Amino acid sequence: MTGFGERLSAALAADGQLCVGIDPHEALLTSWGLGVDAAGAREFGLRVVDAAAGRVGIVKPQVSFFERFGSAGFGALEEVIAAARAAGLLVLADAKRGDIGSTMDAYAAAWLSPGAPLEADAVTLSPYLGPDTLRGAITLAVRHGKGVFVLAATSNPEAFALQSAEITTVDAERGQTVADWVARSAGWANSSAAFPASGAGVRLGPVGFVVGATVDRAELGLTDEALRGAAILAPGFGAQGARLAQLPALFGDLAPQVLASASRSILSAGPDGLAAAIDAHNQELQEGRHG
Amino acid sequence: MTGFGERLSAALAADGQLCVGIDPHEALLTSWGLGVDAAGAREFGLRVVDAAAGRVGIVKPQVSFFERFGSAGFGALEEVIAAARAAGLLVLADAKRGDIGSTMDAYAAAWLSPGAPLEADAVTLSPYLGPDTLRGAITLAVRHGKGVFVLAATSNPEAFALQSAEITTVDAERGQTVADWVARSAGWANSSAAFPASGAGVRLGPVGFVVGATVDRAELGLTDEALRGAAILAPGFGAQGARLAQLPALFGDLAPQVLASASRSILSAGPDGLAAAIDAHNQELQEGRHG
Repeated sequence: MTGFGERLSAALAADGQLCVGIDPHEALLTSWGLGVDAAGAREFGLRVVDAAAGRVGIVKPQVSFFERFGSAGFGALEEVIAAARAAGLLVLADAKRGDIGSTMDAYAAAWLSPGAPLEADAVTLSPYLGPDTLRGAITLAVRHGKGVFVLAATSNPEAFALQSAEITTVDAERGQTVADWVARSAGWANSSAAFPASGAGVRLGPVGFVVGATVDRAELGLTDEALRGAAILAPGFGAQGARLAQLPALFGDLAPQVLASASRSILSAGPDGLAAAIDAHNQELQEGRHG
Repeated sequence: MTGFGERLSAALAADGQLCVGIDPHEALLTSWGLGVDAAGAREFGLRVVDAAAGRVGIVKPQVSFFERFGSAGFGALEEVIAAARAAGLLVLADAKRGDIGSTMDAYAAAWLSPGAPLEADAVTLSPYLGPDTLRGAITLAVRHGKGVFVLAATSNPEAFALQSAEITTVDAERGQTVADWVARSAGWANSSAAFPASGAGVRLGPVGFVVGATVDRAELGLTDEALRGAAILAPGFGAQGARLAQLPALFGDLAPQVLASASRSILSAGPDGLAAAIDAHNQELQEGRHG
């Protein structure tokens, strides 16, 4: 079985670093001429999948915009995920789930178990209950060749106070921040010898982190060392402020590990403009690499 | 419109402080003789609702155990929530959702909008992205007479390092911990004059917090002041270690605000033992109040 990190690495090498969000926000559904309901979200998602297939390696459905429509919304999401995987895309379910013990395990089973209705390739997780609560989910991911992306340093301004707070327990380094603590604690699975470098591209383990493109990692005390071997999901490009061509400058040595997430800046092009918008985003990423 | 805090206060006065969990965990489904599938979770939930109705004021379905079964699981959850509300129970959806901006708003709409398929009376939220990211959700809750319970100080051992970390931004008090920061930041809506004391019972606002029964609040720097006017959802009773009769001793002046959450210690009694188990839990709470 091929691990998630290896599959993602291959996708980055073959298809580039863009991750296309699938966010059937109410305003977008309306501007696309779709209903603000589960059927609209399904149609929206399937159109994004059509445009993304062959242009990028990974898509990221935002679960909240389906959850809003209850079980019918989840039915739509199941169809969108299945269509994306059938088209050869990796699917990262942006669910930001977090809980403890067997409750957390049930979330992992929901999103990462082979054959589960919502089976994706990876899922985003939230560590407020402590990064070690995610251990069972990470173990399940590894067992099935899946991945997780743990929230570490997000780019929204409301996050800084909490994510920069200093850990004071005896087993932390002096002055270690929450963001760094989370990355070092949850990153255990990336150091395993079980995840060899793939033939082409960067070596990645099963545990990625969400690190906003506009985050000042030095100010947050988030070291490159803590992110070694981790895929980095970087929101904050496009509508949120950072330019894709800046990716190498923003991430330095970590740049090859970065998935640049863009949603609104693509989706606002409308159903007929999606493919061109994705191409333009890919072009900007290319220019950054060669600039 | 009656606010959530007022409704909860009335329920506490009339029905006591027990909150019955609805956790269709795989092992419980099997021991109850039910299928490990959405139909089993539905049947499980409806039986708990039947036993809880008239015995307690509030139930807490654990969303992960339904989510595991995808859209069919959410369909089961919709039926369980509707049955509970029709039986006069308040429903606290234990979903621990957390995100930013319009994405967070969509989660709030999913669980708290009147007429939404998953409409509950309150939902648990996670503050890793910063407690101020929950502002829109809290505003939506207030508008519709709903409530939220924000994770603050949880009782699992993995949580201490993060929740005790010290905030270092300029607008924090010196030495303020994450747990206290979260409670003070998200508690803004509880101080509003719009939430009068109900005729009977404690005065509660729309924003509650999750504070584990076995948490050492002093060690965490979580002050009673930060929890003023907030309902407290306290897991950690029953199977997790604390005795219900200890509630007054554990929570002191805050005791009247506490919802004592119990799941496994009730659910493991099996479908035919549920009612007696709930009665026994209520009895133990009564003994604590009069001991």
